[in-house]
Amino acid sequence: MEQKHFQTWADVAPRLVAVAAGREPADLIIRKGQWVNVHTREVLADHDIAVAEGRIAYVGPDASHCEGSQTEIIEANGRYMIPGLCDGHMHIESGMLTPAEFARAVIGHGTTTMFTDPHEIANVLGLEGVRLMHDEALMQPINIFTQMPSCAPSAPGLETTGFEIGPDDVSEAMGWPGIVGLGEMMNFPGVINGSQQMLAEIAATQNAGKTVGGHYASPDLGKDFHAYAAGGPADDHEGTCEADAIARVRQGMRMMMRLGSAWYDVETQITAITEKGLDPRNFILCTDDSHSGTLVNDGHMNRVVRHAIECGCDPLIALQMATINTATHFGLERDLGSIAPGRRADVILTSDLKTLPIEHVIARGKTVAQDGEVLVDCPHYDWPEHARQTVNLGRARTADDFEVKAPDGATQVTANVIGVIENQAPTKALTADLSVTNGVVQADIEKDVAQIALVERHRATGDVVNGFVSGFGYKGRMAMASTVAHDSHHMIVVGTDHDMMAMAANRLGEVGGGVTVIKDGKELALVELPIAGLMSDAPATEVAAKAQNMVEAMEACGCTLNNAYMQHSLLALVVIPELRISDLGLVDVTKFEMTDVIKAAK
Amino acid sequence: MEQKHFQTWADVAPRLVAVAAGREPADLIIRKGQWVNVHTREVLADHDIAVAEGRIAYVGPDASHCEGSQTEIIEANGRYMIPGLCDGHMHIESGMLTPAEFARAVIGHGTTTMFTDPHEIANVLGLEGVRLMHDEALMQPINIFTQMPSCAPSAPGLETTGFEIGPDDVSEAMGWPGIVGLGEMMNFPGVINGSQQMLAEIAATQNAGKTVGGHYASPDLGKDFHAYAAGGPADDHEGTCEADAIARVRQGMRMMMRLGSAWYDVETQITAITEKGLDPRNFILCTDDSHSGTLVNDGHMNRVVRHAIECGCDPLIALQMATINTATHFGLERDLGSIAPGRRADVILTSDLKTLPIEHVIARGKTVAQDGEVLVDCPHYDWPEHARQTVNLGRARTADDFEVKAPDGATQVTANVIGVIENQAPTKALTADLSVTNGVVQADIEKDVAQIALVERHRATGDVVNGFVSGFGYKGRMAMASTVAHDSHHMIVVGTDHDMMAMAANRLGEVGGGVTVIKDGKELALVELPIAGLMSDAPATEVAAKAQNMVEAMEACGCTLNNAYMQHSLLALVVIPELRISDLGLVDVTKFEMTDVIKAAK
Repeated sequence: MEQKHFQTWADVAPRLVAVAAGREPADLIIRKGQWVNVHTREVLADHDIAVAEGRIAYVGPDASHCEGSQTEIIEANGRYMIPGLCDGHMHIESGMLTPAEFARAVIGHGTTTMFTDPHEIANVLGLEGVRLMHDEALMQPINIFTQMPSCAPSAPGLETTGFEIGPDDVSEAMGWPGIVGLGEMMNFPGVINGSQQMLAEIAATQNAGKTVGGHYASPDLGKDFHAYAAGGPADDHEGTCEADAIARVRQGMRMMMRLGSAWYDVETQITAITEKGLDPRNFILCTDDSHSGTLVNDGHMNRVVRHAIECGCDPLIALQMATINTATHFGLERDLGSIAPGRRADVILTSDLKTLPIEHVIARGKTVAQDGEVLVDCPHYDWPEHARQTVNLGRARTADDFEVKAPDGATQVTANVIGVIENQAPTKALTADLSVTNGVVQADIEKDVAQIALVERHRATGDVVNGFVSGFGYKGRMAMASTVAHDSHHMIVVGTDHDMMAMAANRLGEVGGGVTVIKDGKELALVELPIAGLMSDAPATEVAAKAQNMVEAMEACGCTLNNAYMQHSLLALVVIPELRISDLGLVDVTKFEMTDVIKAAK
Repeated sequence: MEQKHFQTWADVAPRLVAVAAGREPADLIIRKGQWVNVHTREVLADHDIAVAEGRIAYVGPDASHCEGSQTEIIEANGRYMIPGLCDGHMHIESGMLTPAEFARAVIGHGTTTMFTDPHEIANVLGLEGVRLMHDEALMQPINIFTQMPSCAPSAPGLETTGFEIGPDDVSEAMGWPGIVGLGEMMNFPGVINGSQQMLAEIAATQNAGKTVGGHYASPDLGKDFHAYAAGGPADDHEGTCEADAIARVRQGMRMMMRLGSAWYDVETQITAITEKGLDPRNFILCTDDSHSGTLVNDGHMNRVVRHAIECGCDPLIALQMATINTATHFGLERDLGSIAPGRRADVILTSDLKTLPIEHVIARGKTVAQDGEVLVDCPHYDWPEHARQTVNLGRARTADDFEVKAPDGATQVTANVIGVIENQAPTKALTADLSVTNGVVQADIEKDVAQIALVERHRATGDVVNGFVSGFGYKGRMAMASTVAHDSHHMIVVGTDHDMMAMAANRLGEVGGGVTVIKDGKELALVELPIAGLMSDAPATEVAAKAQNMVEAMEACGCTLNNAYMQHSLLALVVIPELRISDLGLVDVTKFEMTDVIKAAK
């Protein structure tokens, strides 16, 4: 499938100059709006914008000299004209949608540029998966730039991914047209300890003149933090409090404050600007992870900007943090992120700068949405068949695959149990005394201890790793399985019954990945995610409805936590403390080492 | 001569990380200063800086963990630690000094980075001349980046330069290690009219991901201005009033406000920040042109920053405009312009943020000056002999070369006369009635009308173009000649007597270029500028003394204007109104066409 090359400023400069000078007619004129100028931080009434070849040719008090008989006219009627919104860091896969469907879900919210790190698919399909995402991204009517994933696996030695990414892959990807930098460098212990591989990936990115994404997920602002900053990451979105934000910006990094479906890091950090008065130029807004339901019901970057304003931020500063600051960070300030000559004609018309209704969205000079309705095609890539066949179980799983054997002769064991925390990504390392029947350790519904299994699905090894998890509140005979299983994306099965667990695992093998909830032998919910076991190419509304059904099914199984699907899918994320499961066993993430399921027996 | 490659952040990241983590000792620690943070716009007391490999490894409250037995310690003793100052746009040749000697002249003033456009030498020696400047620049202990000259000749068709620069030259230069962008695009009529060549030069620069310098020297902020902005220039330093500054920044350009030896454009524009409250991030300070005397007696970028502060600018904003704003503009914000990890260790220690005494200058981690004394070597390039033999007169000039013939039979003529304006670059188009003796038009000391001649010196054609000039106030038998003759840099001779003019011209042929002042057959002053007829490789103090002597000699010849050497050297600058002289004749710069010396005769 051919990629559409969007013409550069240099490509179309002769036309832009001719239009601005009045020698040739514009393709489009947006008439009489209030120009929100993110360069000067001003609102300027009564301005016209003239557009040609998808780029801005003229912004000034009167574009009538650019008007021809074929020129399209959009009347702003005094509304604000703001630059299209930019998401500074995010993962498309988190919406369970392909790039095309994700784009279709956010265009009506005024997002016209996204900086996306496809590190989920990188774990499943490697460099090829990144390229597929990159290629579909370039086909879209909005700007989707790709950050090359840096850490697959996220924790080398603690898990086995479908594919790995190394410095050579990074070097190769830096030459692709849509690559804008390196995705979040999550292996911060590697950087701090001078890992050759991590520093080589950073060097390949810096040498290409591109931006190195950071991810320093630690509250320690001492030597480790300084060593990480010295390694080269140019931004970070893992700060959670004002001190985190201030420390990063002082060290010359840009602070990306996120409001995702489950991340609430804007309110806690924006006081660095609103109260401490720091120069806001180095702050950027992003979503990181948005579920399809959030996109359908709440919004995308418009939600983040509104939220920042509700937190007391000056609307113009909030808009700068979602436009020019982002563009500048990625070296694209002369290409997008403002309404100025030469830039992509990405413009939103809105009647109110505080509540930010997204009334009219223009991307690259074309109307793409009005009042939330998307008016443009978001083309689908013709995904290769093997990208739709990534759940390789090798053999059907049976109930006994999920048995945890007790030590010989034991009648009771003390097990290490992963403790889920509501609304949080970290887990607690718990223990529980469990009984043994016929040599098999038993889950205990009364104590809220269920089983968890990591089912290998990349190489058809047939392996299953078993353990215990607490906190969901599941009752009865149930199981829930998901091939979204950060970051290695094997399959996580949580259940109270071995038969149900086997059934759930096999069901996902059958549909090619997704999420299923099974109770008493019946499937209560299914979200098919056929592409890499991570994404659907169905519309966001459909996926969101199925995901909502899944949440309700979890509740029907007794789950008492708020939207605990995130907790489920993160149980294999072996870089966030304290206890996780991987295809290699139970992992103590406070020590970055393997540990035993059975702690003691008697 | 080998160029010193300064190691990139990526080159030295392993060492920086190890130092920040405390595993290896730093080369240098600056202890207990007030960290002037240009990212956040804060001053933070009691901070240490650790440096390794010429770059910053750590900035924090205590660098003792980075200290080894060999670590050099500099005690800041509570002084401010500010980033080395950056000059956003300037011409080294204006100091009449080579890059090495210019560097030596500014290091003590705290300038550690310059963005230089060697367009003077480009007119004399073409691309090779640019490369020679570029190569000597890279040998210096401070950062001198080169902007590839865009406009040689400055006005095609109105003058003949030694060499010309075209799009292919620009493309080639974009691959050189020290090239940071395109030098000021002075041919703004060309851009506005869609000149293929000018737009091709801009495109070559943009396609290389580099910065296009602007130069829009017109007060018209209408369609012409908008067309120029649509063409691609990313900055401008030709604004002279607040409205100019505001208009440019609104259009997404960066406004470079200059304080040169003869430019006073900061005070008139900085009110855009201090009174109108515009976001200051897009404002940059620069010098454009500094004479050696200014460098010796007044300062360089420290002078500009102090002046901005005296104009009411917040000192931290003034410093941002001479550090991080500049670095960001040129895509170098991760390499220099702030005191933060990974950046070049360019640091100034000063006791006062308003008066800005430059007490200690560290460049790339080494002390390069203390209390104005330069403590580092600035290596000279071994300039090729032909670069020192650029005054090619072809034949000695004689008195009759400078005769302006009257029309046959005329006894009096009305001549078009170039009118010099004190302290300004533009000239006035005047007329004067002049008498004719033996068929030759006579200058008229009483009316302050002297002769001016443009003596060809690039191709040894032997040509002389004659005309008249008014305003200097010269008396008696004198002549002043200069091979600094913007922009084509032939030789400008102004005089009251044909013998003196011939003598001055031949004298410069003899010494290989420079400036001479002759009175009554004696040389009152000589500034030898052997390199390209533009620069000396003697120290700035020596050149400044000779230049001062030259000014005094002009006064001794009756000159009544303030430091009129600038006016002298600009008389051939055929891009600034109203009337100029070139090797092709008299030029009406209001119409960009040739005109006659003799307007009427009777």
